[in-house]
Amino acid sequence: MIKIAIVGGTGYTGVELLRLLAQHPKAELRAITSRKEAGTKVADMFPSLRGRYDLAFSDAADAELRACDVVFFATPHGVAMAQARELVGAGVRIIDLAADFRLADPGVFERWYKMPHSCTELLAESVYGLPEMNREAIRKARIVGNPGCYPTAALLGFLPLVEAGLVDTDHLIADCKSGVSGAGRKAELNLAFAEAADNFAAYAIGGHRHMPEIVQGLNRVSKTPVKLAFTPHLVPMIRGILATLYAPLKRTDVDLQALYEKRYAGEPFIDVMRPGSSPDTRSVRASNTIRIAVHRPQGTDLALVLAAEDNLVKGAAGQAIQNMNLMFGLPETTGLGALPVVP
Amino acid sequence: MIKIAIVGGTGYTGVELLRLLAQHPKAELRAITSRKEAGTKVADMFPSLRGRYDLAFSDAADAELRACDVVFFATPHGVAMAQARELVGAGVRIIDLAADFRLADPGVFERWYKMPHSCTELLAESVYGLPEMNREAIRKARIVGNPGCYPTAALLGFLPLVEAGLVDTDHLIADCKSGVSGAGRKAELNLAFAEAADNFAAYAIGGHRHMPEIVQGLNRVSKTPVKLAFTPHLVPMIRGILATLYAPLKRTDVDLQALYEKRYAGEPFIDVMRPGSSPDTRSVRASNTIRIAVHRPQGTDLALVLAAEDNLVKGAAGQAIQNMNLMFGLPETTGLGALPVVP
Amino acid sequence: MIKIAIVGGTGYTGVELLRLLAQHPKAELRAITSRKEAGTKVADMFPSLRGRYDLAFSDAADAELRACDVVFFATPHGVAMAQARELVGAGVRIIDLAADFRLADPGVFERWYKMPHSCTELLAESVYGLPEMNREAIRKARIVGNPGCYPTAALLGFLPLVEAGLVDTDHLIADCKSGVSGAGRKAELNLAFAEAADNFAAYAIGGHRHMPEIVQGLNRVSKTPVKLAFTPHLVPMIRGILATLYAPLKRTDVDLQALYEKRYAGEPFIDVMRPGSSPDTRSVRASNTIRIAVHRPQGTDLALVLAAEDNLVKGAAGQAIQNMNLMFGLPETTGLGALPVVP
Amino acid sequence: MIKIAIVGGTGYTGVELLRLLAQHPKAELRAITSRKEAGTKVADMFPSLRGRYDLAFSDAADAELRACDVVFFATPHGVAMAQARELVGAGVRIIDLAADFRLADPGVFERWYKMPHSCTELLAESVYGLPEMNREAIRKARIVGNPGCYPTAALLGFLPLVEAGLVDTDHLIADCKSGVSGAGRKAELNLAFAEAADNFAAYAIGGHRHMPEIVQGLNRVSKTPVKLAFTPHLVPMIRGILATLYAPLKRTDVDLQALYEKRYAGEPFIDVMRPGSSPDTRSVRASNTIRIAVHRPQGTDLALVLAAEDNLVKGAAGQAIQNMNLMFGLPETTGLGALPVVP
Repeated sequence: MIKIAIVGGTGYTGVELLRLLAQHPKAELRAITSRKEAGTKVADMFPSLRGRYDLAFSDAADAELRACDVVFFATPHGVAMAQARELVGAGVRIIDLAADFRLADPGVFERWYKMPHSCTELLAESVYGLPEMNREAIRKARIVGNPGCYPTAALLGFLPLVEAGLVDTDHLIADCKSGVSGAGRKAELNLAFAEAADNFAAYAIGGHRHMPEIVQGLNRVSKTPVKLAFTPHLVPMIRGILATLYAPLKRTDVDLQALYEKRYAGEPFIDVMRPGSSPDTRSVRASNTIRIAVHRPQGTDLALVLAAEDNLVKGAAGQAIQNMNLMFGLPETTGLGALPVVP
Repeated sequence: MIKIAIVGGTGYTGVELLRLLAQHPKAELRAITSRKEAGTKVADMFPSLRGRYDLAFSDAADAELRACDVVFFATPHGVAMAQARELVGAGVRIIDLAADFRLADPGVFERWYKMPHSCTELLAESVYGLPEMNREAIRKARIVGNPGCYPTAALLGFLPLVEAGLVDTDHLIADCKSGVSGAGRKAELNLAFAEAADNFAAYAIGGHRHMPEIVQGLNRVSKTPVKLAFTPHLVPMIRGILATLYAPLKRTDVDLQALYEKRYAGEPFIDVMRPGSSPDTRSVRASNTIRIAVHRPQGTDLALVLAAEDNLVKGAAGQAIQNMNLMFGLPETTGLGALPVVP
Repeated sequence: MIKIAIVGGTGYTGVELLRLLAQHPKAELRAITSRKEAGTKVADMFPSLRGRYDLAFSDAADAELRACDVVFFATPHGVAMAQARELVGAGVRIIDLAADFRLADPGVFERWYKMPHSCTELLAESVYGLPEMNREAIRKARIVGNPGCYPTAALLGFLPLVEAGLVDTDHLIADCKSGVSGAGRKAELNLAFAEAADNFAAYAIGGHRHMPEIVQGLNRVSKTPVKLAFTPHLVPMIRGILATLYAPLKRTDVDLQALYEKRYAGEPFIDVMRPGSSPDTRSVRASNTIRIAVHRPQGTDLALVLAAEDNLVKGAAGQAIQNMNLMFGLPETTGLGALPVVP
Repeated sequence: MIKIAIVGGTGYTGVELLRLLAQHPKAELRAITSRKEAGTKVADMFPSLRGRYDLAFSDAADAELRACDVVFFATPHGVAMAQARELVGAGVRIIDLAADFRLADPGVFERWYKMPHSCTELLAESVYGLPEMNREAIRKARIVGNPGCYPTAALLGFLPLVEAGLVDTDHLIADCKSGVSGAGRKAELNLAFAEAADNFAAYAIGGHRHMPEIVQGLNRVSKTPVKLAFTPHLVPMIRGILATLYAPLKRTDVDLQALYEKRYAGEPFIDVMRPGSSPDTRSVRASNTIRIAVHRPQGTDLALVLAAEDNLVKGAAGQAIQNMNLMFGLPETTGLGALPVVP
């Protein structure tokens, strides 16, 4: 059994980790911490967990964390990097669901997250936890920066095109749409039901923190630096991201369908759909699968890619467990086999 | 392994059976039938099943069904009773998710469902599949009439009060609210998004088919015949039923909380919540649990019971699998352990 | 033109007053106050008002208020009673959309709102602003306590039965369902989209502040004091209240349909629907109409009343303007003629 | 008074015309036709109209139509062109809310709508009813082809850029999102609440009928023929369209904000928002306003335009009335002054 702790489990990624780990045959949750909620039973905060978890939130007790095999950070940005050095020193592996270990360049991190990076030496060895790009490195990683929800969809959608050098990387567009849970479990007016329901808008037009993360990922596989317009939108639904991706093709004689099928052959969580398909977010709801369809809009020289994921699973907690499975030598799909919930 | 067939699996209870059976360690799905969709792969109709089911819908091939241990009918009313005799004769056990085997009195069936009952001799031996009422009979049953979604919530909510003879059974009220999936997978205008969203109303005021089913269940445990006002409402949500139940207390010196806790002690799928609780439907979303809270509204002589279930799981497919587990000697919770999906 | 000020117009009742007053041919908005937002243009906070209102929120400037004919208080409870004496002294009439002038008994107010009533002498002369009960008194009132959203629906629903002495007032039940905007424009976690969407639950089981208000209204027309169970529920929709009301009939030989039609004949905002109807909330969305249907559930001795209103219009801002029209001798429907928005 | 008939008023554009015309001081509705619903009162089909319209649907009585000043066709495609010749011959003016008179080239119409155009001589004189492009021609038109919902948003969004010759018209992208009412009042499974709620997807990837309409409109103002990728998406909301438009800039030294403000100065229904804005669909809900914001995404050479409209108002019935106002010499805003409904 893998001994596990979750730091900061009061948000949606925290409760989603709890939901998924309850199904995981090798997971043994030892502790879940929250300074603010110390002493509260997790099942009192989340009645959906009643009868399964008797555990209470604890104050971040270092001894308990150091006795674990792996610690998930489901915290605001900045928390994991403050605790990483000590834990790693104690032999504990870390999967950070926040942004502390996503951006390799501390300067980029600081520009976008408005805080200094306090753990740059571990940042240097950390691995970006997108298994379909970095599987081997993840297996050996001591620290995994679990990707953001939008970057997971945008990167897996663009990857085959950019790796193959088929597209003009100066003119990439990611028009992305997310359910409201992507903003976290927060009491904010713009996330209120009476504000967000029956409504649709773009947001963060001036620049969203996931933009540099997508650009970094694409630059790693592109021969030329990419330029990306990234427009996130808020959808009146709870879960789900759809990324609608546009890229000008440099050559139009390539079989895009075959390209995607080949690139993702054998990937347990990527479903390259048949030509002409349009994945909907509910077809992945509550599951770790991402469904991708690639198109050529008529009369244009564009590739159009549609990628649908559950932002809390493949876009967060599920991918974190997928990474854990890799890090501990388990079959990658362990505990992640539940089918999507439809309707 | 239990050899299973599903007759008529193109509706929501059908796809929910498929979702849940995929998690069941002892289930082996042999066939799924649909005359209209014969030849279509189930994963082409429900992309959420892609990668897990390679099976196609078949025309109702009797030979295949007769080779199974159990057949689930997820069909319109009237289908199961037409096929039951032959299947039971071949040693196949039946779980009918429609109404053919719910109402013991064929006259009541005929009055509410506007069709003659064509299989009254098997109706006589069939068992009403509410495990918390009829567990032992279900174990031995050849035919189980799986309860309706509203009756499951209303019966489990009222049961302790009525069994104990504590309430005036002349004045029971079940004010019930259901998500739209309860109406089935149908192209009907009143179920369209632009009609049902951001809207709320009662329906079937003149009489809903689940009313005689609730009354029948309560009469079985009541010393006096019950009179019930049952008002169903349509909630703009996909899944979930909340039953708000009112019953005038004949005595007010009884500890209702203790009554409920005792009655449902050891029930794996009933969660009697703490005093003062208000179960919400999402806390049981996609799970087989029903959560119940009992109250005494101030200044009245009423008992108020709140019961929340997922209409497609405890109210349909999950309860059907719970019944199957009982019928085949498995632990009752087998394959039904997934936690609710929140948020 | 009626010179108008709104105190505290940053909530949903405030913006709804602005929306409706923009259509009112006799309304002249002179000021809208908000201490916190002083200086902000209302159209910057509510882009839906762009192009129509150039006004900014001002700090509560007493001079400006005293120069108005009427001041609407769209504030938290406790504000209106603190300013009422001075305004009334200056000849300004007041319509309070909060609770300060709803409950005639200051002791009841204090028990439910947890604050002392600081203006009991004006409370004594204030009028409960339900035109269908108190039309003549409203015309002459200096202070109107505009009814709560639930009480408007519950009172108009129960009124004909209770006035006629037809029901057992010991056993009234108001099972009510409200859209989320009823809770106000607030950053609260339980009102967040990802919490409230695709979900349904009762709330405030232990006692809701609108209960004594409903009881007070019914007691005024009842020969015997009423006992009421009031159970509010939160519906995943923006606007709308449906009240499902149950009352045991003392006599069953009365034509309830005729009773309701007669009681509300000529009421411009009450639509008594045809027998067998089920009003849905969208059929009154954004309008001041309340639709009511009365039923006799089969096999019971109950009256069942369904009443649907828009909680922000007939349940708040629209009724406030209806009251203003009465107070200033205008036709009651002035400015309130817009049809419901469907779909 | 303008004597008006509506042909085919049982859909959402029909009921929206009824809602808006009820507010129009110069409109006199003489007839509304529906073969299928002849004899049914409109208020029985749409309870939201109760008390305002006593009219019943009639069979398409030609005499009645010929006595009107204007006939709105709120019918499926193909109906208006079959009746146009006779009505125009009788001096009646026509506003077609379907596609019969939108596409100037009958060949394009036939390719996309799969039916021959039966009235090409009137098509030749008909005017595309986008007032902000064709105001003067609309005033004199005998037949107006009222624009599609997506084309209204996309054209008004792209227009200033394309007219000014500022963008590379080979690479235009319109990533558009619509509420479900855009598909009409239909009993179709994919529009059912339990299918469309809590879900998001693109649709009609292979080609949507509004694409040639957008291209036609842009070609009229562009020096070079445009190439457009148009991707519509279905949003789980009732009303609203957001068009997210991308166009590569040929020059980056132009003040786009000033360009839009100047182009739309004086337009009563176009709100060019301040720099940095993100219009949300609810800010135009139930109103005829379209709100537009123009951006330059950082690090790219793109213009990004966001345009939000209510698909049933500016995208259909409201624009039709705007056209009627122009055709009959009324102030363009007559009857269209109601503010958006928020929340």
